Amino acid sequence: MSSFLPQSIRTLIEEFSKLPGVGPKSAQRLAMHLLHSPESRVNALSDAVGGLKKGLQFCGMCWNIAEDSICRICANPARDKRQICVVEEILDVVALEKTCEYKGVYHVLHGALSPVDGIGPEQLKVQALVDRVRELTNSKFQMSNVECQMLNVEDQGGVGAIEVILATNPGLEGETTALYLMRLLQPFKVNTTRIARGLPVGGDLDYADELTLTRALQGRAAYC
Amino acid sequence: MSSFLPQSIRTLIEEFSKLPGVGPKSAQRLAMHLLHSPESRVNALSDAVGGLKKGLQFCGMCWNIAEDSICRICANPARDKRQICVVEEILDVVALEKTCEYKGVYHVLHGALSPVDGIGPEQLKVQALVDRVRELTNSKFQMSNVECQMLNVEDQGGVGAIEVILATNPGLEGETTALYLMRLLQPFKVNTTRIARGLPVGGDLDYADELTLTRALQGRAAYC
Repeated sequence: MSSFLPQSIRTLIEEFSKLPGVGPKSAQRLAMHLLHSPESRVNALSDAVGGLKKGLQFCGMCWNIAEDSICRICANPARDKRQICVVEEILDVVALEKTCEYKGVYHVLHGALSPVDGIGPEQLKVQALVDRVRELTNSKFQMSNVECQMLNVEDQGGVGAIEVILATNPGLEGETTALYLMRLLQPFKVNTTRIARGLPVGGDLDYADELTLTRALQGRAAYC
Repeated sequence: MSSFLPQSIRTLIEEFSKLPGVGPKSAQRLAMHLLHSPESRVNALSDAVGGLKKGLQFCGMCWNIAEDSICRICANPARDKRQICVVEEILDVVALEKTCEYKGVYHVLHGALSPVDGIGPEQLKVQALVDRVRELTNSKFQMSNVECQMLNVEDQGGVGAIEVILATNPGLEGETTALYLMRLLQPFKVNTTRIARGLPVGGDLDYADELTLTRALQGRAAYC
């Protein structure tokens, strides 16, 4: 392919092509764009890629990406450690944090169960979640009502109640994962909840698929 | 944006976002993909970007990208130097070379005339083309019939005839550029041709736009 292009351009096109969603044509276009960009821009990108993993590690608590052994969210004393929101990816944490609604902590699975792709519980941070929940229930992590009020944390189901929110994607793999985790966590007697599935805000009933509508009906709540 | 992601990830997302066709979401996805890739893959990309411009320069003859002062095509003695194919971009050379049909040389303009974007002839390699054609006509670059046959070059319009093929894109800017160049080169009395515009092979008359159909009709040739 493009054997009359210089080697350095071909190498870059090849590397770009390996990225998800970047085909050979896009890779060519990106390489050409950089070729016409000033040296400083090209170096900035090279340094950004090269420096990506420097000083980065996974949080020992929630497996989110972190600059220290514990991520900023887990290290924040204002976050409710009794509420664990289980998500598939790091970017899901970013999306949820943007809402400024959630005051608990997270657990990043780094994927979802997918037998077709050979992804079982061992490939995900499932055992880490189980260990975490076990430790939490054993330690009888307790908070007084006063503490709850101070931290502006809602008391759900009694003082010291632990909640695991299953916030995997509402697709086949995410639902399978949620169901699997729900069963796995049953022995610990923690509150296991699933994020609501229904019509997205601004959505159109007319255009919604049957499954979404079914979920929206099933999940209906008292209008207030 | 995503202020709870570590700095190195945010920097990379920002750099990726600057690339054409890469929005903030794609940039996030690319960064996350690299985060989950082995160190060697990440370094390979970083090195490929950083090494892109090393040892590269523009060909002093045709302004194609080259590893030496003259590109491989111009340096090839088998290529007919009397036939200059004028294209907008380096990738157009790649596309034309893939056909294995063309045995002449190229001239890369590095863009097309676009007054709206402030791109005039000064921003393009137009003067270089004029100088090149002038030099060619002055030197009376001659080839004997025997030489033509040896090089398997078709003799178009007599021995020593120079042809400039205007192969800019068949859009508004490309057509403007072709028209401009045609007039600019008129005094040199070289053969100036324009690549054919018509229905693409495998195309459907029914789906072709009016302009393409008009061009296809205007450009009709004897059926043989």
